[in-house]
Amino acid sequence: MKALWLEKTQISLMDVPQPTSSGEALIKIRKAGICGTDLELVKGYYPFTGIPGHEFVGEVIESPVPKWIGKRVVGEINAACGACEQCRSGRPTHCEARTVLGIINRDGVFAEYTALPLENLHLVPDEVSDEAAVFTEPLAAALEIQQQVQIRPEDRVLLIGAGRLGQLIAQTLVLTGCDLRVVARHPHQKSLLAGRGIRLIDEGDVQHWRYDLVVEATGSPSGFELARKALRPRGVLVLKSTYKGDMTVNFSSIVVDEIHLIGSRCGPFEPALRLLANRQVDPTLLIAGEYKLGEGLKAFKDAEKTGMLKVLITP
Amino acid sequence: MKALWLEKTQISLMDVPQPTSSGEALIKIRKAGICGTDLELVKGYYPFTGIPGHEFVGEVIESPVPKWIGKRVVGEINAACGACEQCRSGRPTHCEARTVLGIINRDGVFAEYTALPLENLHLVPDEVSDEAAVFTEPLAAALEIQQQVQIRPEDRVLLIGAGRLGQLIAQTLVLTGCDLRVVARHPHQKSLLAGRGIRLIDEGDVQHWRYDLVVEATGSPSGFELARKALRPRGVLVLKSTYKGDMTVNFSSIVVDEIHLIGSRCGPFEPALRLLANRQVDPTLLIAGEYKLGEGLKAFKDAEKTGMLKVLITP
Repeated sequence: MKALWLEKTQISLMDVPQPTSSGEALIKIRKAGICGTDLELVKGYYPFTGIPGHEFVGEVIESPVPKWIGKRVVGEINAACGACEQCRSGRPTHCEARTVLGIINRDGVFAEYTALPLENLHLVPDEVSDEAAVFTEPLAAALEIQQQVQIRPEDRVLLIGAGRLGQLIAQTLVLTGCDLRVVARHPHQKSLLAGRGIRLIDEGDVQHWRYDLVVEATGSPSGFELARKALRPRGVLVLKSTYKGDMTVNFSSIVVDEIHLIGSRCGPFEPALRLLANRQVDPTLLIAGEYKLGEGLKAFKDAEKTGMLKVLITP
Repeated sequence: MKALWLEKTQISLMDVPQPTSSGEALIKIRKAGICGTDLELVKGYYPFTGIPGHEFVGEVIESPVPKWIGKRVVGEINAACGACEQCRSGRPTHCEARTVLGIINRDGVFAEYTALPLENLHLVPDEVSDEAAVFTEPLAAALEIQQQVQIRPEDRVLLIGAGRLGQLIAQTLVLTGCDLRVVARHPHQKSLLAGRGIRLIDEGDVQHWRYDLVVEATGSPSGFELARKALRPRGVLVLKSTYKGDMTVNFSSIVVDEIHLIGSRCGPFEPALRLLANRQVDPTLLIAGEYKLGEGLKAFKDAEKTGMLKVLITP
């Protein structure tokens, strides 16, 4: 089958063997999405060799349990062992022996087919289009924030960054009724938010000690600095991005202000599918381009442009 | 009156004017304790000019409300304005205009007398000796951890550091029934813990991803590194020390492991006094030396020795 192949920060289009199901579901990819982590992988964020990509909607072609065959599915990206302490403690996304779709020891979805354990699959409701379903994984990641932190309707919340993930975070945060402001850089990012009645704030207007909760979704030192300035004492700062390497932090100020810093990664799929099915979020606004797999390299180049939102790949 | 005076990292014994009460209580110091923050102030952690010291027990000599006169008291160190957003939101220890006893814009307790607002004072129960009461402030700081984080009896908890504050943290953590291990360096620190049935662990024996909660009480990069190693995914890492300057942190790992990092500072006085009154903690074991105010410089020299526990100063 055709696939994009990543090796030592070089991405290329290749013919590779189709995955064998071997106890897992074999899935024909219908659509896949390029995410910030994919772009970081190409830059060497994590040494991965194989097919990248982890955001997808597809159709089950082969399955050890026949009822799945022909079903339209999305899939959780962490394949867990079920036996380690993290799995037994109810934290399968933190499995100590996990493979991760298109990221750690498991081929991903920028290909004609992929394979995943059945327990990773979620049925896509008929009301959810392929264009929306392909966003289930990043939307679930956005919802992980509410899974970790109680957001009160009276809270003042600042979101820094309105890229691929930031847009989805904004769309879910605003559902809580909280007093949300978003720092966005690019005109198109701003107009998408404004179009949904989400209020923007200029970086320069962000007040010191103003916000109960700050979500940092830029992955940059300047974003973190703004977050620290904006957060009130005893406030919660959620780190919601792919951070490259080390960051220098003033620990004294974290202690003096009694800040809570929370790292946030993969989230729950079923709530994401519910919000897509009842149209309380609309990720399709983010689609900025759609490419055939054969044009995959061009798709990556496009996705890397600053301010670019979601680029999809269709086999 | 006699007092220790700090100016540009120089500490000296001086004759200074006695504080005037001016709406506050005038307190005659009975005993004062040297804390890690005092030692850091002398090293230039924060630019403070005046009388250092914030741990004390004393007797009220003058008061705008007469019933306080003659009473034995301890005092909260943050004097709050009552009007700013932090005060109005129930966070007076984070008051935006606060002065802090012996730390920020307010003379401290290494003197014959000090002054504090009445609302900062707590009556010391008769069952609590001066030697125990002088530990109320750091014991309250230790209890701030339980004020911020729910510690479950089944939790595995690692405390890194068993100095002045670490010993008090160990004595309070063990009361929760949790599975506590303490990393201590100095033989005397170890024997004090062992004497109270608190279990020690060698740094080299600390397992990766083992602990639900880790309290870092060394303020050092190596302590933080050990804490990160020991903490399980989605675990809580409490920063409970005076950190000097910046620290370099791998943000990617905080996100991937979904770590909670919590800064922790001043805590509640009344619970501390209750634990002292019913003898569930015994801080007097920590007393390593006691000096007259006139020997204050010698007291500071003594307190700076590695592994040294609590040095007291009596006017």
